[in-house]
Amino acid sequence: MRTLISELKEHLGRQVSVCGWVHRIRELGKISFVLLRDRSGLIQLVLDGKADFPVESVISAAGTVSENEKAPGGLEIHVAEIELMARAALDLPVPVNQDPDKLSLDAILEHRIISLRNPKILSIFRLQSNILKFFATHMRSEGFTEIKTSKLIGTETEGGTGLFSVDYFDSRVYLAQSPQFYKQAMISSGLERVFEIGHAYRAEKHETPRHLNEYVSLDVEMAFIHSEQDLMDLEVRILKTIFKGLAEENREELEIWNASVPGIDLVDQIPRMTHDRAREIISIEGGRKVYEINPEGERLLCDWALREHGIEAVFVYSFPRKKRPFYTYPLDQRSTMSFDCLFRGLEITTGGRRINEYSMLMDSIARFSLSHESLSDYIQIFKYGCPPHGGFAIGLERLTQKILSLANVKEASLFPRDRRRVRP
Amino acid sequence: MRTLISELKEHLGRQVSVCGWVHRIRELGKISFVLLRDRSGLIQLVLDGKADFPVESVISAAGTVSENEKAPGGLEIHVAEIELMARAALDLPVPVNQDPDKLSLDAILEHRIISLRNPKILSIFRLQSNILKFFATHMRSEGFTEIKTSKLIGTETEGGTGLFSVDYFDSRVYLAQSPQFYKQAMISSGLERVFEIGHAYRAEKHETPRHLNEYVSLDVEMAFIHSEQDLMDLEVRILKTIFKGLAEENREELEIWNASVPGIDLVDQIPRMTHDRAREIISIEGGRKVYEINPEGERLLCDWALREHGIEAVFVYSFPRKKRPFYTYPLDQRSTMSFDCLFRGLEITTGGRRINEYSMLMDSIARFSLSHESLSDYIQIFKYGCPPHGGFAIGLERLTQKILSLANVKEASLFPRDRRRVRP
Repeated sequence: MRTLISELKEHLGRQVSVCGWVHRIRELGKISFVLLRDRSGLIQLVLDGKADFPVESVISAAGTVSENEKAPGGLEIHVAEIELMARAALDLPVPVNQDPDKLSLDAILEHRIISLRNPKILSIFRLQSNILKFFATHMRSEGFTEIKTSKLIGTETEGGTGLFSVDYFDSRVYLAQSPQFYKQAMISSGLERVFEIGHAYRAEKHETPRHLNEYVSLDVEMAFIHSEQDLMDLEVRILKTIFKGLAEENREELEIWNASVPGIDLVDQIPRMTHDRAREIISIEGGRKVYEINPEGERLLCDWALREHGIEAVFVYSFPRKKRPFYTYPLDQRSTMSFDCLFRGLEITTGGRRINEYSMLMDSIARFSLSHESLSDYIQIFKYGCPPHGGFAIGLERLTQKILSLANVKEASLFPRDRRRVRP
Repeated sequence: MRTLISELKEHLGRQVSVCGWVHRIRELGKISFVLLRDRSGLIQLVLDGKADFPVESVISAAGTVSENEKAPGGLEIHVAEIELMARAALDLPVPVNQDPDKLSLDAILEHRIISLRNPKILSIFRLQSNILKFFATHMRSEGFTEIKTSKLIGTETEGGTGLFSVDYFDSRVYLAQSPQFYKQAMISSGLERVFEIGHAYRAEKHETPRHLNEYVSLDVEMAFIHSEQDLMDLEVRILKTIFKGLAEENREELEIWNASVPGIDLVDQIPRMTHDRAREIISIEGGRKVYEINPEGERLLCDWALREHGIEAVFVYSFPRKKRPFYTYPLDQRSTMSFDCLFRGLEITTGGRRINEYSMLMDSIARFSLSHESLSDYIQIFKYGCPPHGGFAIGLERLTQKILSLANVKEASLFPRDRRRVRP
């Protein structure tokens, strides 16, 4: 029976068997100290003689657990028997047992298969797994149904720029930029409240620390709302659940990255301001008049919010019509019932109320010079009775990045795709 | 404040406001009976005069809740005030308030946006949402980490047949057939136990009731196993959690489809047999000698299991090497440590132990005449110490189909993709 390293303290003085990877080897005269790594932690093994395997080999070791305050975690195992389960080659392309901050992002991603073994790098994805858990748990607690919708779409619904095309038998289809169309269809189907966790694709040539060509989108759509204020309320509740859960269950991962999540009470304090007011604040903070909210402006707004409200996050609403897609519900001739959520200097969410009235949608399609034909399936949603609704999407990798203060969003994607990178 | 229809019994004799879709209208002299549908159920509204909106319109109605044993659910609302939130057009392409069994699958899928409003059709996806929940809950309870891996792969890892190709900037990539490569990478990264819920793509020209070109795969991979028996044990535990959960929380959906999940105790009784023994049983049951397990054989095996073991499911293991991919762990020259799970006449799972030893992998790659170059990233996983491991994948739509006894797997996909269908 294998014992996990995290459970060894319950086996003090007893015989156990542990399995894992050889993290580090130190030879001291006639004995060797092997630091063993499994999914739950690290333990020092004490061996007679030399270790005849290199680091990263997989071994199984049996022996007695004893206390040693000098050993990591205060425990060690005096090994009686050892089995080499898989020998590692000697030419590790990147070191596993050193601080990855010394490695370039390019080296980390080029050798992703090996660099993921680094406990600090791997901890990003332990935490990310729990973001997925707490997100889904929260949505279900509010009566949302989880959906899985197709990522292969037949028509260029949102205009056709930025889409990857796929050879599909004798025709051509596209990878979905978002489940927008389908989320709205499921609202009108009667589910009323849906969420989807799925991949989204953007064929954008950006090469920035905030862009991925393939990312995981945490999508939400909700019927019978009044305005985008209801959606911001919902996002506050979701973020509170996620932050609270991570603070409880991922203390270790947060500590490794010297990071913390905002206090739950502070999330209620996230300021909400119109797009106009946001531009004003950015203009004052930046010392020059701005007409758009660019990445620099997002950082200035979050700095301002931290100073004024104690939390590095802002909701900006009432975005101009020309900055939002055709399906966004207009507030007036100029602006829309839409919003962004900025967190620690980065937009992590875009959302808003959607047009649900058939005639208003027809007007908007005309205003945006879109083709009725390519939108014919979409239009069906609204022709037969669709309630007021809206939704938003949180970028999983961006949220992970900002929680851990990672420099580049690619660090928060297991196998990131950018213009140059399609492997490993 | 809106009240959900399912909560009305707590408001007997009081004023409430309800919102939803007009499911049915019956006019009786000077009053009208409107059956209203929301996400939680149906309620009869009693209106003075005629209803001046067609079925499927979205309305909000305020009035007093009273008992009426003739009304569906035993309650009705005498409406004082009504608001038309979205008027439906009159030309519904498929009826919503009738038994969908009268509709062809083609009509249902062609008009998917509307047919999903049918409560019986929609119930499939309420249940499916809970399969996702119980699967993830179970995996986490056994210490599995949820991962999200890229669906865009640079090389044709598994041979290149059956892949959809994607124009990716100036190059060409493929949609992943499975997260196999990445699951194994995450095993060797040290997570040891991972699961992924994600889309998988098969460019197969099959047009059968059991094939989809895009489906959701419930993927599992686990380190430090001994053989495929450990994996079958794990799948039994997963199925028990899912069946137990659905029996508790989805009684209504199961009743609508006149379906039931197997009793939990019976899942432990699922017979396990070698591929050779399975062929024997099929030969006897079918009255002629067979050399392969085809769909007809899968049905015969499940019939046999129901008769002999009381459950319509079978595990078949020790598949021949020539029927399994190169990464499958060989048991001997002829057979492998791999298995299938058949449920109600259909293969819902394929899995097995994988090769984790570098030299054995090299032999297998040679035996299958595969190129080292296209597998170079994959080979890295095993070069630097990878523990014994294995895994499997459960097809979400197939499992849903079989639980509800749907005739075609496409019924269990919200927006199914087949050779001819890429919309809606």
